Amino acid sequence: MIEKKVLRELYSRLGKEKVFSDREYMLAYSYDATAMEYWPDAVVFPTREEDIAEVLRICSERRVPLIPRGAGVGYSGGALAVQGGVVLVFTRMNRILRLDAANFLAEVEPGVITADLQAAAEKRGLFYPPDPASLKTSTIGGNVAENAGGPRCFKYGVTGNYVLGLEAYLFSGEKIRLGARTIKNVAGYDLKSLLIGSEGTLAVISKVLLRLLPLPPLRRLFWVDFATLATGAQFVQKVIHGHIQPAVLEFMDRRSLQAVYAYQRMPLSEKTGAAVLVEIDGSPAEVAEREMVLGKIIESSGPVGWTQAQTLAEQEALWQTRRNISPAIALLKPRKINEDIVVPAALIPEMVSFIEALAAEHELCIVLFGHFGDGNIHTNLMVDPADNDEMKRAEIVLDKLFRRVVELGGTISGEHGIGLSKKPFMHYQFSPVELELFRRIKAVFDPDNLLNPGKMF
Amino acid sequence: MIEKKVLRELYSRLGKEKVFSDREYMLAYSYDATAMEYWPDAVVFPTREEDIAEVLRICSERRVPLIPRGAGVGYSGGALAVQGGVVLVFTRMNRILRLDAANFLAEVEPGVITADLQAAAEKRGLFYPPDPASLKTSTIGGNVAENAGGPRCFKYGVTGNYVLGLEAYLFSGEKIRLGARTIKNVAGYDLKSLLIGSEGTLAVISKVLLRLLPLPPLRRLFWVDFATLATGAQFVQKVIHGHIQPAVLEFMDRRSLQAVYAYQRMPLSEKTGAAVLVEIDGSPAEVAEREMVLGKIIESSGPVGWTQAQTLAEQEALWQTRRNISPAIALLKPRKINEDIVVPAALIPEMVSFIEALAAEHELCIVLFGHFGDGNIHTNLMVDPADNDEMKRAEIVLDKLFRRVVELGGTISGEHGIGLSKKPFMHYQFSPVELELFRRIKAVFDPDNLLNPGKMF
Repeated sequence: MIEKKVLRELYSRLGKEKVFSDREYMLAYSYDATAMEYWPDAVVFPTREEDIAEVLRICSERRVPLIPRGAGVGYSGGALAVQGGVVLVFTRMNRILRLDAANFLAEVEPGVITADLQAAAEKRGLFYPPDPASLKTSTIGGNVAENAGGPRCFKYGVTGNYVLGLEAYLFSGEKIRLGARTIKNVAGYDLKSLLIGSEGTLAVISKVLLRLLPLPPLRRLFWVDFATLATGAQFVQKVIHGHIQPAVLEFMDRRSLQAVYAYQRMPLSEKTGAAVLVEIDGSPAEVAEREMVLGKIIESSGPVGWTQAQTLAEQEALWQTRRNISPAIALLKPRKINEDIVVPAALIPEMVSFIEALAAEHELCIVLFGHFGDGNIHTNLMVDPADNDEMKRAEIVLDKLFRRVVELGGTISGEHGIGLSKKPFMHYQFSPVELELFRRIKAVFDPDNLLNPGKMF
Repeated sequence: MIEKKVLRELYSRLGKEKVFSDREYMLAYSYDATAMEYWPDAVVFPTREEDIAEVLRICSERRVPLIPRGAGVGYSGGALAVQGGVVLVFTRMNRILRLDAANFLAEVEPGVITADLQAAAEKRGLFYPPDPASLKTSTIGGNVAENAGGPRCFKYGVTGNYVLGLEAYLFSGEKIRLGARTIKNVAGYDLKSLLIGSEGTLAVISKVLLRLLPLPPLRRLFWVDFATLATGAQFVQKVIHGHIQPAVLEFMDRRSLQAVYAYQRMPLSEKTGAAVLVEIDGSPAEVAEREMVLGKIIESSGPVGWTQAQTLAEQEALWQTRRNISPAIALLKPRKINEDIVVPAALIPEMVSFIEALAAEHELCIVLFGHFGDGNIHTNLMVDPADNDEMKRAEIVLDKLFRRVVELGGTISGEHGIGLSKKPFMHYQFSPVELELFRRIKAVFDPDNLLNPGKMF
C-alpha cells in the first residue's frame, strides 16, 4: 500500500479527473487478458507528456512502483501491478499527432488504438501493416511494449519493424529520444530496439514515430481445406516458394475448426482435417498473376475444398471465422493455457505431430491454430483448474513443449511476451549468463526496480 | 605494448600459423578505409570457435584490449586498435555452415564475404538482400557490427533486418546465444538488436543466423538524367507513391557525374544536373507492370534523357559507373571527408540546397550522391589536409551540417557507424543522458572497457 501523502500529491499535481484510487477503479485495473488479478493503489490517466513526467517524479521520489498500461488486453500479465503502486493508463493519450505522406511517417501518442491508426493511414493511401488480433482495442504503446505480431507479419514484419523512433522517460524522470525519422540509422547503440518488446520495464514510452507503407490497392483472400495438417503444410511450402509473397498464411487444426464451426452454427465436413487461410495483395497485375499461380498451387495440392472471397463482405466473414476461434475454444473448458510458441516454419508439421502425440499421451485437449508462414503456433491447453490431475498433466506437457521448441531453434513466445505468465519458462530459452545480462540491463535503466517490477525474469 | 608473456601464451595456445606480431603484420592491420593508423601488438586469425574463446580468456586474464575485425574496409575506424592490443581477424572463419531453403535461413561464420553468401544463396533460388558498396570484400560479421546498408535497403531493409540470431562471446569468455531461427521472437530483452551495430564493443560475434528471401526472378535497371536534383526529387516522390516498390533509388549530383564520367573517359552533357538510378524487381508480370508505370512516370517528369539497361552486361555497366563514383571523386583532392548523413526522404532537396549553399559560402568542394529512397546522403567534403584554412572551413561546415541533420529529424550516420571518425559528433544527436546510458550498457557487457575500447562515445 502506498502512503496517503503520495495519493494526495498525485491528486494535487494532476487533478482528480486524472487520478483514481477508489475500489471500483482498482478492481477494473487489476486485470488484463490473463486470469490473474493484482490490485494497484492508484490509477492515473495522463493526457499530456507533462503528466507522465509529473507521475514519474512523484513515484521516483516516493519509491512507488509504476506500471505503464495500454488497453490492458495483453496475454502475459505485462500490465498487472504485482507489487501494487500506480498504474499509468495511456488510453487518453490517443492523438495521431502527424501523418506525413511524403515521408511515410506517423507520429502518435502511445494510447492510439491500432485500428484507428490503420484507418487514418488508409484514408491517405498509406498502410500500417502490423495487425495483432486485438487491433480494435490494443494500443500502439502496448503493441510496441510487447512487439506485437499478427497474421500479416509473415510478409510485413512485426511492430518493431515499423518503429523508427521513440520518445520515452526513464524512471528517474529524465527524457530520452531514440531513433530518427529515417529508415537507416546506425549512430550509437540501438536502444530503440532494446525498448521495443521490453514490456514497460525499462522506460515509459511517451511518443512513437512509425514507418508507413503505400497502401496495396488490392487484396484477395482464399480459404483452403485439407484432409490433414501435413498436406496443408506441403501446400504452404509451395506457396512460399511460388513467388506470390502471400501477406497472410494462417492455419487451423481440426479442433479449432470444430469449435468455431459449432460456435457459428455451421456444419463441418468430416473430411476436413485442417484449413489454411491465404491472403495476397498488390497492384491489379500483381494480384491477377498471384491469383493465377495460387489457383494452380491449390489445385495441385489435393485440397478437400477451397473458396475465394468474392467481395469485401465475404473477406470479412472469413476473417471473422478465424478471429472467432479464440472465443469459440474458450467454451470448451473453464481455462485456456495459451502459449504462442514459434518454430522454423518448415518444422510446423513435425512440431504439430509432436504436440498431438503429447496431447494423446497425457490425455489433454490441445487446440492449435496460428501463423503458418512464420512458424507461430498458438498452442491452447484446454483445462479445468479444479481438476488437479489435469493441471499436473498440463504442467508436464508444457515442460516437454518448451524443451522441444528450444531444441528446434524456436522461441517460447512469438507475440504475447513474457510478463508474469511465461516468466517461469524463461530458463528454457535463456542461460543463467543471458538472464544475468537482462537483470543488469534492467538495472541500468531502473536501478531500484520500481518500473513494472516483477516481470519477465 | 602488451607483455612478452601474453604473446608467448597466444603462440603456445593457438599456434604460430594463427598468431602474428611481426612489423609487417602490425602495419597491415593498423589501417582500415579511413586515413587513420593505430598499431596493434598482435594479430590473431581464429579458424574455429574455440580459438575465439581461447583469445578472450587470455586477453581477459591479462587485461589486454581485443579488437574484432572483418575485412577492415570500414569508413569509421571501428576495427582500429586505438589502445593497441590484439586484433582478432575473422577472414579465416568464412564458412557458410548451412543454407536451409525450406526455412529460408543461412547460418554463417562471421568472416564470410557478403557477395559469397549472396552467390551461394542465388544458386539455391534464395536471396540475401543487403548490399553495402563493399560487398565484394566486406564480411557478414563486419556488416552486422556496423549494421551495414546499401542501395537495396530502401525496399529490403538493412543488415539488421536479416539477422535472426547471433552467437557471441562476452569479453569474460562466456558465450551467449541471442534470437532464434524464427522471424517472430519476443522472449526477453532484444539483446540481438543491441549487438547489431554495436561496432564490436559489446561482444565478439562467433556465428550469424540470417533470414533469406525467395530470389526475385527478374530485375530491371533505369538511369534517368535530370536538369536539376530538385526535378529528380519530384520524380522520386512519384515513383515511391506509384506502387512500383523500387528496389533501388540512387542519386548522383552534377559533381559526382563530372568526376565519374571523366574517370571513365566519357562525355557528360551540359544539360545534366543530376542522375537517378532506379531498379525494379519481381515476377515477370510484376516487372512488366512496373516497367510500364515507371516509363510513364519518367516521361511525365521531364528528364534530360534516360536509358534502360537491356542486358545483364548493361545493368552491370550502369552499376559500375555508380560504384566508380567513390574512386573517381577521390582523385579530386588529397582527402575525402566522408559523411553519411540521413534525413527524411522527402527533405532531400531541402538538405541538398542547404549543403550547396554551405559549400558556396565556405568555398568548399562538396560532392553528393546517395540513396534517394531512404534519405541517405553521402556528403563528401573534398579537402587538402595541408591547407589549414580549408580544413578549418570544413570543420565549420560539418558543425552546421550535423546541426541541420538533427533539426530535420535525421541521423549523423546511416551506414558507416561512429567508430573513431564520427565520435566527436555524437553530441549533436544524443543528450548527456543518452550518452550516459550508452556508457552504462557498455559497462554491463565489458566492465573493464577492454573490448574495442575508445570507440563510439
